[in-house]
This record gives sequence, structure tokens and C-alpha cells, in this order.
Amino acid sequence: MARYSIGIDLGGTNLRAAAFDEAGQLLKKVSGSTPVDAGPEVVIADMVRSAELLRMELGRESLAGIGVGVPGNIDMKTGTVLAWNNVPAFNGYPTRDELSQRLNTPVILENDANSAALGEQWMGAGRGVDDLVMLALGTGIGGGIISQGRILHGHIGMAAELGHITVVPNGNPCGCGNRGCVEKHASATAIGAMARNLGLGANLTAQDVHALAEQGDPRAKSVFRSAGESLGIALASLINIFNAPLYLLGGGVSAAWDHFAPAMLAEIEHRSLTYRLTRDTTRIERATLGADGGLYGAASLPLKSGRAESLE
Amino acid sequence: MARYSIGIDLGGTNLRAAAFDEAGQLLKKVSGSTPVDAGPEVVIADMVRSAELLRMELGRESLAGIGVGVPGNIDMKTGTVLAWNNVPAFNGYPTRDELSQRLNTPVILENDANSAALGEQWMGAGRGVDDLVMLALGTGIGGGIISQGRILHGHIGMAAELGHITVVPNGNPCGCGNRGCVEKHASATAIGAMARNLGLGANLTAQDVHALAEQGDPRAKSVFRSAGESLGIALASLINIFNAPLYLLGGGVSAAWDHFAPAMLAEIEHRSLTYRLTRDTTRIERATLGADGGLYGAASLPLKSGRAESLE
Repeated sequence: MARYSIGIDLGGTNLRAAAFDEAGQLLKKVSGSTPVDAGPEVVIADMVRSAELLRMELGRESLAGIGVGVPGNIDMKTGTVLAWNNVPAFNGYPTRDELSQRLNTPVILENDANSAALGEQWMGAGRGVDDLVMLALGTGIGGGIISQGRILHGHIGMAAELGHITVVPNGNPCGCGNRGCVEKHASATAIGAMARNLGLGANLTAQDVHALAEQGDPRAKSVFRSAGESLGIALASLINIFNAPLYLLGGGVSAAWDHFAPAMLAEIEHRSLTYRLTRDTTRIERATLGADGGLYGAASLPLKSGRAESLE
Repeated sequence: MARYSIGIDLGGTNLRAAAFDEAGQLLKKVSGSTPVDAGPEVVIADMVRSAELLRMELGRESLAGIGVGVPGNIDMKTGTVLAWNNVPAFNGYPTRDELSQRLNTPVILENDANSAALGEQWMGAGRGVDDLVMLALGTGIGGGIISQGRILHGHIGMAAELGHITVVPNGNPCGCGNRGCVEKHASATAIGAMARNLGLGANLTAQDVHALAEQGDPRAKSVFRSAGESLGIALASLINIFNAPLYLLGGGVSAAWDHFAPAMLAEIEHRSLTYRLTRDTTRIERATLGADGGLYGAASLPLKSGRAESLE
């Protein structure tokens, strides 16, 4: 049986797991049965069960390992989660070692936005690219940076907090302590809040606002224009910093690309000389793997690791 | 005779050149005799003359090569300068090959702010550090990033344009087309302009404003507070992006550290959760090599190159 690996994504309500062959072909996907916020013991048991399901079907010997995308910062040395805001019980829990022991296979943890960036690089919009910057536009805004072929982790696994780039110095207050973080002006949450402020409705999701924009509602369209401008300010700085050939936008909000991208690109165009000088070789695009990007990226980790490539 | 290399810095009015041994000891320094904006032919001749002077004294055989720090973006493949705003005649000129041919020795070009970052890493405040972000506060603000041990060049040599990070979306207009670039709010030029706007004098240099602040002038002090706040906004984002262990500020304005650093650090403190969580391992400091940093860094390039380390 050909070598394969398993990716697990803890980003949603229930965990998802999938097996991929070395060519990046998705072989089988399963979902966990317990909520991710149920605490480490329950979630680890759910991960073990999901991985065992895939392993029973695909074979025990040819499993290269398991990669796990976690919505938090990872201490790469100890394999623990440093800051997972939604599930504080995981903080400091020896997730990697516990899982590796129970399944008797190598386990690699990675931040979920980093996993999504790796997934896009492996099988999505970033194939063949050694440097890319990814923004995952969800409830918040996550970031993943691949620089000179490697995920940029920073010295304590906290790099690429791209949602907390300041775009409006005295803008909306953020839980991180800052004001005007891009995620307070362009995430799904921010889009709902802007729609509420414009009187569009008290409990609209970003998806609702998107639907209204599709119907031509001028206030809904202005919400996405505003989000696009904020994204453009952040991306212009990122382009000036990285001069990477590829910037990707993923996450749920990226479905509204047609409504925010024109304002975003206009902002980048006038704010970044680097962009204007490198237009022919700089791509700014939607991610293509959708919600599966993190699964691909997580699964790519044990396969890469086996190839003597450094992961840090 | 021990191996040595020559660094050339084209950043000032006249070029400067210096020889260093492999341990980073400055052996001898000379200055060019013609203005750097005199055009490629004249400046190349001046570089050749300066290098020959050093070589006559230190020996022809043991020269490892020459590194040149240039205030512009470098195409690392062709060894040409892509954008050197002050001296457009250099753009596209085969600087590296011309110099290498005339001196019959390896030549490596590098952006001047990148050179300063490399210099600090070699013999200054960044010794032993693999990841650092440097801001050179001069007429403009230059940037140099060493990430995972290597200078971050970007795909066309335009990375680390840190002076053009947006800190005030509708702030002061910049020559790059943007508004509110940090260099329009915290460079020497910006400090002079702010002093002028506050009625401190029409033609004050940043050094003059510094002298006034030292004397306790409240308006001069407020100018540096404002510059510090802008630097803090940019640095908070850079910390959130890189999670590096070291951020260095160099260049002429950094001499006024005592006047801008408190506001800068306060801004970073409240804007960056990453900083607050990694305070014990994150240093934000003055560069220590002063105006010689670029000479050190440029000279380090041929020595590193000889050690089979990749420079790209």
C-alpha cells in the first residue's frame, strides 16, 4: 500500500480528519463526533477515534504520520498549544505527545492558518511557490506566512498574527488590547457589526450581508467596500514588507471576493510602490481549497518531515 | 596574511570603504573623493580606487571579496540596482560585474539597510541572533529583515520597505504614492517638518530638534513623542508579523532614543499582545555600530559566501 498521511483540523465546531496520499490526493474524510470545545481529554479521544477509522481502512504500516491544525499558537519544541483562546483548557496540555503515544505514530502540530497556507502551497493556489502570505478571513483573521520555503513561526510560535496588523490607529477596540486591528474591520464578525451599525439588521452574519450585497443592497455593498479598504491597507504593508510573489485570501468571507476585492486592490495599487513596480509577478488571489485547506496542510507535514526537509 | 574582506557603503555623500578581518575587526577605513551622485562611471572609479588603497596595504591574495551596500533595491541575480532614487543613473547599470571585473575579485551588492542589519548581526547588537528586524531612521526609514538566518530579499529584491508601512491611513503624503507611511511621520525629514509646523523654526534638522529637546523644549519633546508613537504602531505590527527576538533601531534619529523610545514602547506595549506575551524574550534596542553598521554588513557578505552558506 502506498504511503499516506492524516490531517486533522480542529478549526471548526467538530474536528475533521482526512487521509491523503503523497501526491496530495484526498483518500477519505471523516468528522469527529464531539465539540472541539469539550476539553482536551474528550477531543484527544475523538482525534484518536477519527484517526483509527482512517487507519483501519487505509492500513497501519503505510501511515507516515498525523498533522494537526490547531486554532492557537504552538510551541513547536514541546508540541503544546500556547494560546488557544476558545478552548483555554488546551493551553499547556501535551497535545502532540499524548496523541503520538496513543496512536503510536509521529504527530506534528501546526497553527490552523499556517496549515491552510501549507495546504494551498501543496495542492491549491500556491503550488510551486516558495513564498506566500495567506489571510484567513473568518470569525477573526488568521495569518500564515511561508518565507523562503518554510513556515515563519517566530521565536515562540506566535508569528503571522496578521489579523492584528493595525489599519486604523484609533479604530475599533480589539480583544488583544489594540485598536484598529484589521480583524476588527474586515473579519466576518466585523462585517456583521458594520451591517448592524448601518441598520441592516441586528443579527446578520457575514453570509447574510453577502446575500444582501448580491441583491444589490447599497449598504451591504458599502460594508464590503469598507472591509476591502482595510484589507488593502494591511496587504499594502505586507507587500512592502515581504515582496512575495503570492498573497492569498481564504476563509468564509473570501466568498464575497467580488464585493470587497475591487476596493482592496485599489487601496493596494495606490498604497504600495512595491506592488506597482512588481505587478507582473505579484499575484493577489483567492485561496482555492476552501475549508479543506487546513486538512491538506496538516496532512502535508508528516510527509514533508519524512523527506529530510526542515520544518522549523 | 589572514583572510580579510572589504565593505563599501554608498549611503552617504561620499562613499566609505573599510577592510575587516574574519573575526570582524575593522582593519582600516578610507573615504572616497567624489560625491556618490556623480554617476556610475565616476563612482565606480572611486570604489576601485578606494578598494585598491586598502588592498595595497593589506595584500592582494588574502582578499575574500568586496561587499557593497547601496541605497536602492538590488536585483540579486544580475547584480544591478533596480531603484536608487537619489542616483537614477545607476538604475540598470551592471554595478556588480563592472566592479568585479575591474578589481578581479568577487563582488556582492546588498541594500544598505540590509547591510546594516547584517552588520549588527555580525558584530553589533544582533550577535548570535538568527532573526531580527532593523529600522534605519535617517532621511527616510530603511528596513532590513533577517529571517531564519537569511536576509529577506523578496522575489525581486524589494522586501523590507519598512519605511512604507502605513501607520496613519490618511496621514502625510509620501513620494511612494501612499499616505501615512511611517517614514513620513518618524524620519529625520518628518521630524524637521513637524518642528516647522509647531513654529520651532523653518530649517531645523532632526539634530537641531534633538538639541532643543535635550534643553527641555516642550514642543521639541512633543515632536519626538509623536515620532515614537508612529514607530510604535509600525513596530507593533512587525512584532505581530515576525515574533522575532530582536528589533533594532539605527540611523541618525536613533541618537534621540531617550526622547522617542518611551512613547514608542508604550505604543508597542498596548498594541501588541504578542509583545506582552513574549516580553522576556523580545528585545527592542538601539543598534550599536552607528554609521559603520553598513560597512560591517557589506564586508560580512564575501566572508559568509566563502563559507558555503547560502546568501539568498
